[in-house]
Amino acid sequence: MQNTRVGKYLQTEYGKDEDGKAEWIRHWIRTGFDALEKMLAESPSRYAAGDEPTLADVCLLPQVFSARRFGVDLAPYPNLVRVADALEHLQAFAEAHPSRQPDAM
Amino acid sequence: MQNTRVGKYLQTEYGKDEDGKAEWIRHWIRTGFDALEKMLAESPSRYAAGDEPTLADVCLLPQVFSARRFGVDLAPYPNLVRVADALEHLQAFAEAHPSRQPDAM
Repeated sequence: MQNTRVGKYLQTEYGKDEDGKAEWIRHWIRTGFDALEKMLAESPSRYAAGDEPTLADVCLLPQVFSARRFGVDLAPYPNLVRVADALEHLQAFAEAHPSRQPDAM
Repeated sequence: MQNTRVGKYLQTEYGKDEDGKAEWIRHWIRTGFDALEKMLAESPSRYAAGDEPTLADVCLLPQVFSARRFGVDLAPYPNLVRVADALEHLQAFAEAHPSRQPDAM
């Protein structure tokens, strides 16, 4: 849903500008975050799916990264922000940050 | 990409009508089919990923079903059509057809 080629399609076929493409991305991020925030509010855990990091966290953190990049208001997602903060302190996640990859510009 | 809620978004936010929503679906089906047809043309096999049915076939057949439903021209995809025909002759796939489910209308 958030791939470059989707944005390209929105631009060429639907005439969306940069902000229009960003709003598309924000919408689908919020849709997922709404669901996960509700789950975490009802059943709190240290990470996204329990007290140990799981594949859910591997999916979550890049979405939080995108959320910040594209300007999603994170105020409605206190549990997700808390989990993301916890994840960013784990060495494995810190080392996987986009800015630390060999091809990061 | 082809979920109902995406179509609903295209309708409410972008003002797309039924054909506009169908064209969105057709576009993404063709994108996947273009890639898979090329792979099968270069390296033919009985099914989508070899001579035994695999998860790739479980994904492919519903896409062919959707392609026909939404009017994708299948002429450019002779290998995919051949694989789909072979799959439809397998009992497990035949029994999983949407029209044979208990809640089929």
